[in-house]
Parts: sequence; structure tokens; C-alpha cells
Amino acid sequence: MRIAVDVMGGDHGCGVVIEGARMALENNKKISALYLVGDQSAIHAALPKRGFRDHRMKVVHASEVITMEDKPVNALRKKRDSSIVRAAELVHDGKADALISLGNTGGIFASATFKVGRVAGVDRGCIATVIPRQGNEFVLLDAGANVECKPLHLAQFAVMGSVYSREVMGRPKPRVGVLSIGTEDSKGNELTLEAFRLCKGLDLNFIGNVEGHDLFKDHVDVVVCDGFVGNIVLKTCESLALAMFSMLKRELTQNTKRQIGAYLAKEAFRTIRRRMDPEVYGGAPLLGFKGAVFKAHASAREKAVASAVRVAIEAVKHQVNETIVNEIARANPILAAAQASSPSPQ
Amino acid sequence: MRIAVDVMGGDHGCGVVIEGARMALENNKKISALYLVGDQSAIHAALPKRGFRDHRMKVVHASEVITMEDKPVNALRKKRDSSIVRAAELVHDGKADALISLGNTGGIFASATFKVGRVAGVDRGCIATVIPRQGNEFVLLDAGANVECKPLHLAQFAVMGSVYSREVMGRPKPRVGVLSIGTEDSKGNELTLEAFRLCKGLDLNFIGNVEGHDLFKDHVDVVVCDGFVGNIVLKTCESLALAMFSMLKRELTQNTKRQIGAYLAKEAFRTIRRRMDPEVYGGAPLLGFKGAVFKAHASAREKAVASAVRVAIEAVKHQVNETIVNEIARANPILAAAQASSPSPQ
Repeated sequence: MRIAVDVMGGDHGCGVVIEGARMALENNKKISALYLVGDQSAIHAALPKRGFRDHRMKVVHASEVITMEDKPVNALRKKRDSSIVRAAELVHDGKADALISLGNTGGIFASATFKVGRVAGVDRGCIATVIPRQGNEFVLLDAGANVECKPLHLAQFAVMGSVYSREVMGRPKPRVGVLSIGTEDSKGNELTLEAFRLCKGLDLNFIGNVEGHDLFKDHVDVVVCDGFVGNIVLKTCESLALAMFSMLKRELTQNTKRQIGAYLAKEAFRTIRRRMDPEVYGGAPLLGFKGAVFKAHASAREKAVASAVRVAIEAVKHQVNETIVNEIARANPILAAAQASSPSPQ
Repeated sequence: MRIAVDVMGGDHGCGVVIEGARMALENNKKISALYLVGDQSAIHAALPKRGFRDHRMKVVHASEVITMEDKPVNALRKKRDSSIVRAAELVHDGKADALISLGNTGGIFASATFKVGRVAGVDRGCIATVIPRQGNEFVLLDAGANVECKPLHLAQFAVMGSVYSREVMGRPKPRVGVLSIGTEDSKGNELTLEAFRLCKGLDLNFIGNVEGHDLFKDHVDVVVCDGFVGNIVLKTCESLALAMFSMLKRELTQNTKRQIGAYLAKEAFRTIRRRMDPEVYGGAPLLGFKGAVFKAHASAREKAVASAVRVAIEAVKHQVNETIVNEIARANPILAAAQASSPSPQ
């Protein structure tokens, strides 16, 4: 197993990313090579004085970085020697099986699309985000890559999300739902109503429409939506969770009695924070591409980087891509037939 | 000031709604009449034995109820003697200035549209939800009435939301944003990009695109989106807030030390719960109609009902509707001109 880590573009500098990669390497005997991709002088400056002793770690120089301000597709054209492009090329050239980056999400997605390439049968790659709730997680896709989607895309996201949930997250029969504004079959907009119809015909554990109220109950494992809605939901959840932590902190420091209470109960807060903080859990697989491509949160620290590497290894080990190719190949003829018999024009 | 309260359709029965109405009456000398609309035998059974002594309270009988399972428009046609329809008629006939209901949101919206009627110049009425965050609240609209919207509708929502925020929520210059997936002008889908262009030309404190991350910071006062997105955002927030309370409860009861801590800090939790619990803050003005129409949360208890009545009175007192008519009349020619010069067909 060979992993390419784009060490540039994280909020805390490349040293944090490199240390996370080192932790991952130490804990995973299966890794045969780990490429640190980025500015080599920055990487060498961040390495311990004698370098890492682990011979599996290799530095791949890239002189440029796609920043958060860059427009992804433009940047891809102009910054050919950027770390994310070089990392994607390692996957494309068969030198790496998986790629992890903390950088510009659009840049990672564009690199996956134009440098790594989509697997056969998938019309649109997507970003799947794993969101924690009490007891487990659910996967939301697309989380922002495809602003405008067709029903077919949503149906393919459903297939890919189901594979990911089963193979990586260990759900034997992932419950798949289309995110809508009511659970009745008739609720939704043009896009979701037709996506609902398409998903119903597929070999999925499709539970129909789900609404916002269902997400944080243990009710659905795979939530399908277009990237506009998905991105808003994801960011709203991150924002609300942080706001509630901040309210809690404020209230708990109002007087001594509360402060003592907070001190005694601090482990409870720590557990929830660790569970719900996007900087900790943050990490999103890009699905539909020829390698395992992962976006870690820009503010990820060492442990979160190591955890992203571990998840990428799981995806490769469980042959997520191969399974996606097979299941999409089975789904596409069903989808084509359903579209041909569609009551409304596509 | 005359208020119609649809006492049917709440989760806790009409007694709770009636008691909330009584509390409102007691605290508001300005109310000259308060109509309890619903099944009169149920109302009389719920009233204290001697009835309320307040002569301002009147019972208006309605033999039917639009339930949560009813399809709004059908129900409106079939259940002509339903409590929400009778309450809406009181407003339409000039006998009441405001209407509060805890029932089926679609039923309330349909009654507002077909029985109360829209004010001049407004193409679509909408549901505006007030969502709390630390320190204050923001208003999100449309929260679910209009699944498919045109850019013009979003621009009119912006005007109406701005009026509501200023007149009822006391923001002198409400910051208005279009909910999108990035703050740059170029980010969004077809609908929001054009809505952005239209809003920019209006006499609003328009701050451009806002994303999910901005909602719970004190960054925007009026968040504009279509009803599909708005409903998902609203329900996702409610669901996440409740999930976090439930995680907190679970963690705080894990051992004696935490339990003692939780006991000492209990006022902190209570404050946040009171602030963030949809059953407490829940309540949504329907904007663009000839009366002040309010949807309270189905699970609202006495205080929440009283608070909904109080907010409805504020809306009437501050002439929200008259101001909406004036500001929409100023906005519409600007919107028409902007649409005529649109780079893309509407």
C-alpha cells in the first residue's frame, strides 16, 4: 500500500501534516511507501534533524501550492507543479494507491477529476462527508463538488455512498435516503422526486426520502443530495456545533458554582467535543475516482491526519473503487431503462 | 388589536394553547379581542369551570381540524369548517388582525394564501423562521413554503425579511445575505447567482453570499434561500441541537463525579436549552399576507404560545405588512428593470 500525502495547504503548516503521516506510518505495517509531496525545503526544515529513520517515507518536490484563494480549474492549469497535482499524478501513474490532502477542496476535486480520472461508468465524482452523531456516523454526499446535479448523478451517488458505508464504515445493509423536505414519496423538488424514482429501482436498501430531522437520529446511513444542498448542510452543522460549544463555555464560566461543575464534568464535554468537532472528525472521501482520494480538514492536526491516512488505507484494502465499478455497472442499465420510461423529460 | 388563535393541532391538546392565550391576554392590555377557534366542546371542556372572566376572550366554533397527515390544498377544499380556515376567515373579514396556529404548516400557508390573501406586489408569500444563536437571532426565509423558487421570489423574500428583522427584531440595518456555498460573488447555483444580482440593486443592507459557516456567527440577520434548502437547514439545525443535548445528557450521567458536576452547572444547561430548544423558541411568521400570520411549533407549551401571541402583536403594532407593501412597491420596478437587462433568460 502506497500513500501520497500533500503536505501543503493545511492551516498549521506542513510540520503538523508530516508528523501525522509519521504517526500513520508507525501504526500501519501495510504501508510500503509514503510520499510527502510539497516544497522540499519546507519539508526538510520540518523534518527532525536526522530525518525520519523510516525508509518508507519519501519526499516528492512540488514548487507550487493551490491556495484557498485559487480558483480550482484555473489553478490546475496554471500551477502544474503544485503539490496536489503532483500527488494526483503519483496516483495516476500507479505509484500511489491513495492520496490525502488538507488543501483547497475544489483543487483536490479538480485534480481527482483531471489528473487521477474517474472510474468506468461514473458520470460525476463527488465528495462524501462522514458526519458523526451519537453512537455512529452517517455519510452525506455530494457535499459540495457538484453544484447542479441531474437525477442520474444522485442515483449514482446513492450507489457509491452505499458501497462506502458498507465497505469502510462497516454497515452490512446501509440505509440510503434522498434528502428532501418530508418523508412522503411525493415530497421534494423536481431533482429529488426523479432521483427518488431512480433509486427505488436499484439494488439498494433504499428507505426513500429523509428530512433534516432524520439526520442525527440513527435512521439513515447514506444521505444523498446535490452539492449545493450538501455543502450548506455540512457547513451549517459545523457552524451550529461550534456555536453550541461556545455557548456552553460561556455559560459554564458565569460563576464559581458552574465552574466547579464544569471542572467535575469536564470529561463529558471533552468526549462530545472530540466527537463533534469538525477539526477532529473532519475528513471526506472523494468517490468515483481511480484512486482513494481523501480531503482532510484544513485545520486537521497530527492525529486527524493520521486518522485520514488510516481511513484511506481501509478504502484501498476493502477495494471500494473496484466494488463501485461493479455496482455502478449493474446500476447503469437499470437507470438507463428507468430514464427511458420517465414520465417527465430529463 | 384582535387576535385569532387556532387552538387545535398542537401536540399537547387545546388546553395548553388556551392557557397560553390566557397568559398573553393577561399581559397585553392592547388586545381588545382574542378568538379561540376550534371545537367548542373541546374548548369548553378545557376552560376553567367558570370560564375565563376576561370578556375579551371569545370562542369561535370550527368542527374540523387539518391534521399533520392532511395534504394542505386538498384539506383546505374539503375541510371548510376547519379551525385554521375559520381563523383565517376572521383575518380576511377584518375581525382579527393576527392569527396564530400550531397546526399543519402547509395548512396554515394554504389558508394564508387562499383565505387571508397576499398583500399587493408580493408574488409569493413565505415562511420566515427565527433561529437563535449566541446573543441574538437571525431570520431564515423561505423555510419551506416554496419548494421551487425564481430569483425574483428570493429578492422579494430579502425585502420582506429585512422589514421583519428591522421592525420586529429591532435591527436598525439588517444584514441580508443569500445562502450559498461560498462567500465570493461567483459562488452558487443558477438560482442564487441571479438572486444575488437582483438583491444587489435593491435598497437593502445586502452583504452578498453567506454560507453555512456564517449562520451562527453574528454575521448576517436575514438569510434568503428557496423553501427546499431552507426547510432542510431548519430541520437539520433542530435535529443537531437536540442530538447534542441528548449526547450531553448521556455523557453527564456516566458516573457520579459527572453527575455532581452537572448538578452544579445545571443552570448553564437550562439557559442553553431554553435558548436553542425549538419547542421553546419555535415560531415562524408567514410574510407577504394581509394579516399577521404566525406558525408556532406543534409542540409549543403555554409560554411558547403566549410568546407567539406577543410577537404577532409586535408585527401588527410595527405595521410590518404596510411597510412590506411600501418597500415591495419600491423594489418591484428595480427588479423588473434588472430582469429585463438579465444576461440569462429567466
